[in-house]
Amino acid sequence: MTYKEKLNAIRQQMHTEGIAAYIIPSADPHISEYLPEHYKSIAFTTGFTGSVSTVVITQNFAGLWADSRYYVQAEEQLKNSGFELVKLKAQGVPEYVEWLADHLNNGDTVAFDENTVSVVLGLHLEKLLAPKQIKFLNRDFVGKIWDNRPQLPSNLAFLINDEFIGRSVESKLAEIRKALKKNGAEYHLISSLDDMAWIFNLRGTDVGYNPVVLSFALITNETAALYIEKAKLTSQSITKLEMSGVTVKEYNAIRTDLEHIPEQSSIFVDPNRNCFALYKKIPASVHKVLETNPSTVFKAIKNETEIKNTRITMAKDGAAMTLFFKWIKDNVGKTAITEISAAEKLRQFRAAQEGFVGESFNTIAGYKEHGALPHYSSTPESDVAIKPEGLFLVDSGGQYQYGTTDITRVIPLGNNTEEEKTDYTLVLKAMIEGSRTRFPKGTCGYAIDAITRKPMWDHALNYGHGTGHGVGYFLNVHEGPHVFNASATPVSIEPGTITSIEPGIYRIGKHGVRIENLVLTVKDEVNEFNEFYKFETLTLAPIDTTLVKTELLEKHHINWLNNYHKEVYEKVSPLLDNETKAFLAEMTKAI
Amino acid sequence: MTYKEKLNAIRQQMHTEGIAAYIIPSADPHISEYLPEHYKSIAFTTGFTGSVSTVVITQNFAGLWADSRYYVQAEEQLKNSGFELVKLKAQGVPEYVEWLADHLNNGDTVAFDENTVSVVLGLHLEKLLAPKQIKFLNRDFVGKIWDNRPQLPSNLAFLINDEFIGRSVESKLAEIRKALKKNGAEYHLISSLDDMAWIFNLRGTDVGYNPVVLSFALITNETAALYIEKAKLTSQSITKLEMSGVTVKEYNAIRTDLEHIPEQSSIFVDPNRNCFALYKKIPASVHKVLETNPSTVFKAIKNETEIKNTRITMAKDGAAMTLFFKWIKDNVGKTAITEISAAEKLRQFRAAQEGFVGESFNTIAGYKEHGALPHYSSTPESDVAIKPEGLFLVDSGGQYQYGTTDITRVIPLGNNTEEEKTDYTLVLKAMIEGSRTRFPKGTCGYAIDAITRKPMWDHALNYGHGTGHGVGYFLNVHEGPHVFNASATPVSIEPGTITSIEPGIYRIGKHGVRIENLVLTVKDEVNEFNEFYKFETLTLAPIDTTLVKTELLEKHHINWLNNYHKEVYEKVSPLLDNETKAFLAEMTKAI
Repeated sequence: MTYKEKLNAIRQQMHTEGIAAYIIPSADPHISEYLPEHYKSIAFTTGFTGSVSTVVITQNFAGLWADSRYYVQAEEQLKNSGFELVKLKAQGVPEYVEWLADHLNNGDTVAFDENTVSVVLGLHLEKLLAPKQIKFLNRDFVGKIWDNRPQLPSNLAFLINDEFIGRSVESKLAEIRKALKKNGAEYHLISSLDDMAWIFNLRGTDVGYNPVVLSFALITNETAALYIEKAKLTSQSITKLEMSGVTVKEYNAIRTDLEHIPEQSSIFVDPNRNCFALYKKIPASVHKVLETNPSTVFKAIKNETEIKNTRITMAKDGAAMTLFFKWIKDNVGKTAITEISAAEKLRQFRAAQEGFVGESFNTIAGYKEHGALPHYSSTPESDVAIKPEGLFLVDSGGQYQYGTTDITRVIPLGNNTEEEKTDYTLVLKAMIEGSRTRFPKGTCGYAIDAITRKPMWDHALNYGHGTGHGVGYFLNVHEGPHVFNASATPVSIEPGTITSIEPGIYRIGKHGVRIENLVLTVKDEVNEFNEFYKFETLTLAPIDTTLVKTELLEKHHINWLNNYHKEVYEKVSPLLDNETKAFLAEMTKAI
Repeated sequence: MTYKEKLNAIRQQMHTEGIAAYIIPSADPHISEYLPEHYKSIAFTTGFTGSVSTVVITQNFAGLWADSRYYVQAEEQLKNSGFELVKLKAQGVPEYVEWLADHLNNGDTVAFDENTVSVVLGLHLEKLLAPKQIKFLNRDFVGKIWDNRPQLPSNLAFLINDEFIGRSVESKLAEIRKALKKNGAEYHLISSLDDMAWIFNLRGTDVGYNPVVLSFALITNETAALYIEKAKLTSQSITKLEMSGVTVKEYNAIRTDLEHIPEQSSIFVDPNRNCFALYKKIPASVHKVLETNPSTVFKAIKNETEIKNTRITMAKDGAAMTLFFKWIKDNVGKTAITEISAAEKLRQFRAAQEGFVGESFNTIAGYKEHGALPHYSSTPESDVAIKPEGLFLVDSGGQYQYGTTDITRVIPLGNNTEEEKTDYTLVLKAMIEGSRTRFPKGTCGYAIDAITRKPMWDHALNYGHGTGHGVGYFLNVHEGPHVFNASATPVSIEPGTITSIEPGIYRIGKHGVRIENLVLTVKDEVNEFNEFYKFETLTLAPIDTTLVKTELLEKHHINWLNNYHKEVYEKVSPLLDNETKAFLAEMTKAI
């Protein structure tokens, strides 16, 4: 079936049932970032493979709403699909709901698969479309036309030893139960896979890059049920979980268990991290506490074991990056290198490090104008040869048993323009501004976002993505609840959280620059004015200084960079052979 | 009655009715900032005269929650009152609700006067106390013990000519009706007095400083009812309003009219700007759209007439400020000057300007350690003599027929310490950082807040108040919806809005520094990255440069200051006599 045929087949189903608009979000019942193949309905229907978008189909229009990260990719992939790109003004805002509110007629019916819509989105749709008395139906029209739809994964899962993770399942359940009590909730539904992984010290390979396992949980003051395909766990794992007070049940049993929650009781449901289908299973009389999962908040604050291990992992990751830089510089112009082969080489350097499990996301290796696509993913069709000229942007990361990394560096390969040098320097300046910020307790991520962007704004530059995201511990490379972006997210930055700082400049058709480090929030000075916090940079990899225009920096930026490079050398060089050590010494020498 | 006797009398009423906690907010049915005497229940009950606080009384505890602006004043005024200060961690957050949630027992009853609680606060109380099954009663216990309680004001009100305000009532009503339609609302209740003033081009003197009139409105697609004590309006005004399609009704008739809104209809109610008592009059079956008043959003964006007039007003206000600076410098150490006499002299300089109506708020004239109290109000008991030494902080503003001003300057009077010089310079640096920020369309106030604070944070300094507030046009000196503070307020900064930028440093027992200008948001460069905005500084008054430590500033701060002073001289000097002109030339000379 072509995409146009699929679109027609969906429209026919809509017509039969009298449905004015059909919505396909990029989500699964866990509201995951990385979806099992089974839930990649948008790629199946439209050909667009970007990780975040929404499709809305009416009889006259078929649109795919995507943010600026995906503009170019979507324009390309949607050609002749029958779908057109609608450019989101802001990342993460469901602007198509306003579009629906404008375009639907009074009394129209809207349908979507409630398994793929978060509670917050479902309620938002109901609220915004209420003035037009819109009716809603739960339908999976894509499923109806999807022959050989992939099954859900059934890979083995494993439990991590408490000693490597710093905390037992019992202690995590106790902390969650305290939060439930405080919120007056008797039950607690959890669907988000990284929460599941954190609470149960559980890891797996069900989806790409995130070491998580498809599962749900229902926790009360006395019980904790883990819903998971039982075959994924060894009997030892099941026994260990049971000894921690956890009952293991089949994955789909959550649905009936929710239906049987006693009338008039109360349940804690994170509206952003549970799907509308499960939410609607809960009896109407049950009081719903709609707040962020306690485990999401607890998980973000790394314990001492996690911080200690992450620091070790960062040196290893930095060693792999250094080997990669040296390999590129030694080979560019001599050996055939492409975006894909470079990314694979980098994976191999990481894989040689002890504890490596896999990549933490699909490497973005964008040469020249491909670097201008912030979420570029090289395909055999788009892949290009790397030559000794221009800029090569590489955003990559690893999952290690003892931590998760995420780093972006831009490699100047020669003949760089003044514009490239200026852009490189301003991005570096912004990254340093963010990294050296001291801020009072209670400060939220949007403050760090503004401070990081200011050096860009001064030059009338900006970037269309956030400044940084929370990062897990051998878990999702994107995690909440904190975030450094321009949205009004009222989450303060707490000591122990790990976050990326990754400003960028993207010149379509020319080049992209992004420089990214991970930082740990730590305590700083306490005085009559406040309790201050600051960042400790965790990422340990050299930042190429050959393009830096020092006249665009202030003294304190240069000092920061030189101190950083001194630390990188001290911590990474012991992991390197002598030749690479000399290469690192050169890359990290003071400017 | 002493404050302790009042507290006992309230506790007796609570005991009789079985009430565990009684809440007294500082508010009126219009959720005003400045209250009519009739509603100053907290001052009557506790003696605390600060403009924002909340009292919570239980049988064992009587607390007054106030933010850092009022810590010192509250400690002082609450001595022996039976009430103790509870320090708010954040401005504007009802932290006492958490306190209630912790301290109440299951099934307890809480009471307050629903006329003095906003809809949002009422709903928040209900939600946060729901886990403990708290019951609520609507009671005015203060009214019961308040002999000779002041009547509501009955001052005359007046209409402003359209030509001085740039827009007719009809056009404003039309714009509001469009917003109602978009939100699917048939009725619109308005209680906030500055919205009333803006919509109906109405001004008055019912409360201090804000030129507003006690009134409500109920607007539909066809009708617009203004609820006001009719005797306040001349018959000409009533006729003019009627010709604009407005029906004038008695002030209290709003209550019965709300009760008679048809079942199943819909009403737009701003939950922050209407009281819970009126909200509860609306039949339960009426659908409530709880969003910011459209007029609040429209009012914030000044039209060309308003901007033109404000610029003229700013030069006049700057002339008054210059005369004041000269008077202080000429007379300090020679004539007896106190905080109160200085504030009165400043009022006189303003009053001599054409179009002056009154002060826009109670002048904060804080000498030496009094300057460390951000909302200090000099009383005959606290008043001190100004001597030729230390710092004198003066935060003041005027209501003019053609605009509203708000300005803070710190006058160095001699023998200033290094700490004073450093603090002065860093506050100036922060004010300049905020003022010269360029930012993309869509940026919210918290970004400007963070950028302004950064020079302070770099030195581990901070201030406990917001960076800036919206300012009206011959209207409230504090207006929304935009604000420059650390809260997650998702309101973007639009061209045409006027906002203050006023960072500070407060050293308790020593001195305070705050420097404040008003800025207008204007359009700047448009390029491939974004549509950028910037600020035009509106305030035109010299900033004393004698304490500036240039080594703490960067070149661009100094350039900004010199350019600003050039403009101040150009625009203000034509309004001055020759001697004052020479004084201004000296104050504004480049550093």
